[in-house]
Amino acid sequence: MPAANPRAAEAASDHNGQLTKPPGALGRLEDLAIWFASWRGEATPKITRPQVVIFAGNHGVAALGVSAFPPEVTEQMVLNFQHGGAAINQLCKTFGAALNVHPLSLDTPTADFTQGPAMSEAEVVSALQTGWQAVDSTSDLLVAGEMGIGNTTSGAALAYAQLGGDAQDWVGRGTGVDDAGLALKAQVVRDGLAANPAAATDGLQALRCLGGRELAAMAGAIAAARHHSIPVILDGFICSAAALCLHKADKAALDHCVAGHLSQEGAHAKILQAIGKEPLLDLGLRLGEGSGGALAIGILQGAVACHSGMATFAQAGVSGGE
Amino acid sequence: MPAANPRAAEAASDHNGQLTKPPGALGRLEDLAIWFASWRGEATPKITRPQVVIFAGNHGVAALGVSAFPPEVTEQMVLNFQHGGAAINQLCKTFGAALNVHPLSLDTPTADFTQGPAMSEAEVVSALQTGWQAVDSTSDLLVAGEMGIGNTTSGAALAYAQLGGDAQDWVGRGTGVDDAGLALKAQVVRDGLAANPAAATDGLQALRCLGGRELAAMAGAIAAARHHSIPVILDGFICSAAALCLHKADKAALDHCVAGHLSQEGAHAKILQAIGKEPLLDLGLRLGEGSGGALAIGILQGAVACHSGMATFAQAGVSGGE
Repeated sequence: MPAANPRAAEAASDHNGQLTKPPGALGRLEDLAIWFASWRGEATPKITRPQVVIFAGNHGVAALGVSAFPPEVTEQMVLNFQHGGAAINQLCKTFGAALNVHPLSLDTPTADFTQGPAMSEAEVVSALQTGWQAVDSTSDLLVAGEMGIGNTTSGAALAYAQLGGDAQDWVGRGTGVDDAGLALKAQVVRDGLAANPAAATDGLQALRCLGGRELAAMAGAIAAARHHSIPVILDGFICSAAALCLHKADKAALDHCVAGHLSQEGAHAKILQAIGKEPLLDLGLRLGEGSGGALAIGILQGAVACHSGMATFAQAGVSGGE
Repeated sequence: MPAANPRAAEAASDHNGQLTKPPGALGRLEDLAIWFASWRGEATPKITRPQVVIFAGNHGVAALGVSAFPPEVTEQMVLNFQHGGAAINQLCKTFGAALNVHPLSLDTPTADFTQGPAMSEAEVVSALQTGWQAVDSTSDLLVAGEMGIGNTTSGAALAYAQLGGDAQDWVGRGTGVDDAGLALKAQVVRDGLAANPAAATDGLQALRCLGGRELAAMAGAIAAARHHSIPVILDGFICSAAALCLHKADKAALDHCVAGHLSQEGAHAKILQAIGKEPLLDLGLRLGEGSGGALAIGILQGAVACHSGMATFAQAGVSGGE
């Protein structure tokens, strides 16, 4: 996996120090711009081709009643994405991002993971490959999002298997389940790990046993972005749970990623803590679709625009500080 | 002063409830969109003409050594704004905002407020008028920013005069003063109120006695935006200190404003608490120029785009929840 370019990072940091502002006055925007430069391998990069990819999958556990919405909503929302009617469509338009939607075998939900692995080896590899291939190598920024009725339960199971603790601490209300639904989700997560002890051993096994196709595809896309030196903005709980599987395999696997936002869903903050990411936004979103990541594209665009577009003290003839 | 339109708020809230997402899943974006709709007087508004106005002024107290930068930087930065080289220029370009720069009598700093009022009645009224007239009545969103070496001391003095407490709790490092500079700022703030007891009596007197021309102009612009039913994104510490003077006069005077961000400067959080605003962003910015407010334009654009652009459940043929 390629690493960040230390010469670009140093050149970007030097450049940042010459810009017409007090040192550090742009706060995290400065760190973001230097980080972005280090992954793009140039001192003053631009963001001209951001890409949002959405993967959709159906889940065996949805039949257990873990969601407030029926499973057919996954496909209905895919059509909504394709027709431009969802939140993510408006956010992509707002920030000039390309949007690609990939439904993954929606007619064949994954197996109920309380009874055994959600996917076969072949199925999870196929989903990873779909994710990998979905990334446009000419993009300069990636957000991976998802749609899949039942997938907050899958995300919670991935976190529980890999980070331990109590199952009930990893589940949340998702699209809006009541207290009974919440208790059911915790039980399903517990049963999932009991039926799939291999999920605790490594990230790929976790994705296969407890993930869904769209979670595996997100992991594949995040890895592909690394291969192409494309920085990634992580979305919320489910995206972060998928990313956690890569982190479990290699602690440096997410160095090209920032956390776009803190979701209101369940234990997103605890996953971000585990992968060492501080979110850029905290606005109570819990929609998925890549929406929180897409909203943070604007922050990164602002950071990079300041970094690469501002005049230096010398260029502007502005006196320096003490 | 016009109020928000309750019928538009209700229509926007009804519309929000029909959009293809679980109820509340867009978090604060939903509240923002409904708030924006209520001020624009339409259920599904758009943001097509955001405006950023920057006011620049020079301060008598700058001669006391309260800033890490020399006073001539105010004018140098105005030229930088005019030539497109500052952070705010890049942010306006990123989010499609118009930018207007208004230097206010830079050759005539305000009087040293430790010796008496910073401005005469005529001077403060003139600055308020400049701010009022700077607002384009055809804009649909306003950010007011500032530039003025020494003006974090003026902002701290305004907060101290109107909110009380200890002077040292209201000062911060501004463009980067050291500990001695920080202590000096606190003493200047103390001396300022001692020399101007009228500043504690009302907002206009506070602006006249302890403000600067650019702070008064920001207050004028925020009031003009209200007159034109244009929602406002407040910038950081200095903008909020100016806004506080309006709030002191009328608790409802800032109902058309949201706080764009939490600045790293001094006691911004305490001013926001006093005016009852929760910031949209918290990224450690402390630059001024309207930069934090401008960065938040993207958040508001995203919120309004989702609200006004998404399909309803009925339009998209998506099944509702339980």
